[in-house]
Amino acid sequence: MSVPDSDVWNAVETVDRSELIAKQNAVLPERIEKAYVEGGLYRKMYDAAGVSPGDYGSRADLGRLPLVSKDMVRAFRAETGDPYGGLSSGVVPGASISHGSGTSGTPTLQVSSPADRETVADELASMFWMAGAREGTRILTMQNFGVRVELTLPLAAFKIGAVHILPDLGSASVDQLEFLRPEVTWAYPGWLDGLSAAAAKSGRKLDAVLDSLETLWWGGRYLSPLKRSRLQEQVGATIYEMGGMGDVGLHTSSCSAQDGMHIREDLFVVETIDPDSGQPLTDGSPGELVFTSLWDEGMNHVRWRSDDIGMVKSEPCSCGRTSARIFQLGRVWERTVVDGVLVMPGQVDDILYDVTEQDVPFQLVRSADGSRPAFLRVAVPSDGGVSVDDLGATVCSRLGVELEVRATTTEELVGSAGAKYAHKYAQVKDE
Amino acid sequence: MSVPDSDVWNAVETVDRSELIAKQNAVLPERIEKAYVEGGLYRKMYDAAGVSPGDYGSRADLGRLPLVSKDMVRAFRAETGDPYGGLSSGVVPGASISHGSGTSGTPTLQVSSPADRETVADELASMFWMAGAREGTRILTMQNFGVRVELTLPLAAFKIGAVHILPDLGSASVDQLEFLRPEVTWAYPGWLDGLSAAAAKSGRKLDAVLDSLETLWWGGRYLSPLKRSRLQEQVGATIYEMGGMGDVGLHTSSCSAQDGMHIREDLFVVETIDPDSGQPLTDGSPGELVFTSLWDEGMNHVRWRSDDIGMVKSEPCSCGRTSARIFQLGRVWERTVVDGVLVMPGQVDDILYDVTEQDVPFQLVRSADGSRPAFLRVAVPSDGGVSVDDLGATVCSRLGVELEVRATTTEELVGSAGAKYAHKYAQVKDE
Repeated sequence: MSVPDSDVWNAVETVDRSELIAKQNAVLPERIEKAYVEGGLYRKMYDAAGVSPGDYGSRADLGRLPLVSKDMVRAFRAETGDPYGGLSSGVVPGASISHGSGTSGTPTLQVSSPADRETVADELASMFWMAGAREGTRILTMQNFGVRVELTLPLAAFKIGAVHILPDLGSASVDQLEFLRPEVTWAYPGWLDGLSAAAAKSGRKLDAVLDSLETLWWGGRYLSPLKRSRLQEQVGATIYEMGGMGDVGLHTSSCSAQDGMHIREDLFVVETIDPDSGQPLTDGSPGELVFTSLWDEGMNHVRWRSDDIGMVKSEPCSCGRTSARIFQLGRVWERTVVDGVLVMPGQVDDILYDVTEQDVPFQLVRSADGSRPAFLRVAVPSDGGVSVDDLGATVCSRLGVELEVRATTTEELVGSAGAKYAHKYAQVKDE
Repeated sequence: MSVPDSDVWNAVETVDRSELIAKQNAVLPERIEKAYVEGGLYRKMYDAAGVSPGDYGSRADLGRLPLVSKDMVRAFRAETGDPYGGLSSGVVPGASISHGSGTSGTPTLQVSSPADRETVADELASMFWMAGAREGTRILTMQNFGVRVELTLPLAAFKIGAVHILPDLGSASVDQLEFLRPEVTWAYPGWLDGLSAAAAKSGRKLDAVLDSLETLWWGGRYLSPLKRSRLQEQVGATIYEMGGMGDVGLHTSSCSAQDGMHIREDLFVVETIDPDSGQPLTDGSPGELVFTSLWDEGMNHVRWRSDDIGMVKSEPCSCGRTSARIFQLGRVWERTVVDGVLVMPGQVDDILYDVTEQDVPFQLVRSADGSRPAFLRVAVPSDGGVSVDDLGATVCSRLGVELEVRATTTEELVGSAGAKYAHKYAQVKDE
């Protein structure tokens, strides 16, 4: 085991990979058994597939176990009335019950045991600690508490002895920030856009409003290195990228090396699969990320399909952490194949930003009936000094594909100025 | 010290009053000193009044110390820029910062130390325990987390080993309740009205939707004994009354005796004052309630004006608790004097409900310029078998005043059916 660096919260983050993998392998059989015994969904699926937990002999067998998706959970709940959709045996004393947003129907209920909350808080504390949070650091969290991480964000801050700030997200947020003076926070694109607009409206600059800020996590949308550096200037703070799935209790974060997001492999096994065939892919290939939880008492997630497209790299990171890194590329439904090449909107975003040095609204338009190839709509900036033809040529050459690029307007994609923020429209659309 | 009853969480709840008062008296001098040293507002006010913490010799001196109100806090913040309005020395490691809703301007920031959170959680646990919550009991809290009690509601549940449920308050709440099956919860009038409407819309009865519910706290509006018993039938659960001030960390709750709300006097000193003169009143007289906190590390509340009108009774309760009980009557601005008699809307509410056995929308209309006496608008129920004259006579005779009663319609007071709930309109209005 290596000696923890000063920005390493938990010694397991720098443990030898062989030790990490050995730990995963030791825990996996009991996790598979637990899911089968406690969760009706796993029992149903494993029985239907003719596999049993006893068939799992070694890591190589993991890929033979059925994959589980949220749709399967919904169907199981509808069929059986089990409020936890076959993922949990129910609540224990001291448990908390929360749920997803329920935007797509009945919210998915989630059970967390006291130990579960400690685990997620440790995971979050390691993020905060990496970014320099120490005793007394002011951490502002805008996270909605109605997801499985409820309670764990403040708990993570308290583990460090930091100060936890829960702001009012109302229109007074610009004024509040001047009082609250957070040093660490995170932001989704919409929040930052909104804050920027509110600051401008009151005649202030964002870096002045966020004067005290040292660290900001960016989540919810692809962030290219170039965009990150521009955003750092705008905000006046170091920006890290984060990802995660609240309901699974999974959080990933970039580190000082700014090269992918570390995943706590003592807590999760990550796989990559072909989203169509479900077949395992090798590390480094872009595919759907699949997670198996190694710690959860309340819920069972074995081979849980994330709906996220990404790449996993397990070679050592220059920051000293030995855990694998995730490079998020987008959502499964955004996958677009052009000339046999997988094109994700984040890649397009990156190229457009690189050429014009500004956010360029665009939309990858696929053929709903397969009758024509995909094409790209780009709201070419009038002050960008670049034509749609030049932009198109660059995009095609960098992606290595032939892709028609058509000019459009920002209004057409985003709506009238000020009505919506650019992140609200779909970057990939079927027409 | 008496032996704790089975529904008593903390032995201090049944301690001899003499011991309780002695404990208060022992702590008060250091609380007054702390407020003066840490909170700029107290220093300013005490200096202006020519008093100092050293002048406090005994309990009889408490009434000589300046009263503090939220308006004073706002003014101090505006004047000095102190984000905590002179009530706090600032944050400590492990602190959390939250705030009020900010509906009346800049939100009031609140600091809670780790010990503060434990204290409030103990106070809330004693409420839950009194109502029968035990290991595994499902407690559903709909409380907004953006007030000072953030984190303490689930913490209280966890202290008991109960299960904490944080529901989605969206339109799916009726369906959710069938999955969540809470045994303990609380409700503000609007929530219950909304739930009732949602249940009716889906063809269900409220007591069926709340099938699992055993205990419900009612807060935010006066509840008469008659109304309580009717509501119990409707909901199918025992109803307790609760009150409190999230920002002060104060929670009061009725007990098995259903006769006033107990206040943890090991944590708070409660006084009654004449809201106009600020002069102390004797226990049992209706007046503005004033609270001094005996425990708070993060914030200082010494003689804090609550804006609430109530009565304090300190004689023993049949439940065995020795703490004083609060009988809430309404808000200070709702005080209406008719023929020299203080009339609070809750009293009118009570009489109307008693006579008609249903909720009767009404409005006490005062004269903005003092040119005429107050009168009462009543939406006399068409199926109530009672005329406006008969209702008026009963109201006047029970209140011991001459008060003109005029008929009005529910729509005129509440708005068109379904658009608003009855609790949203002002029960007292100046015209």
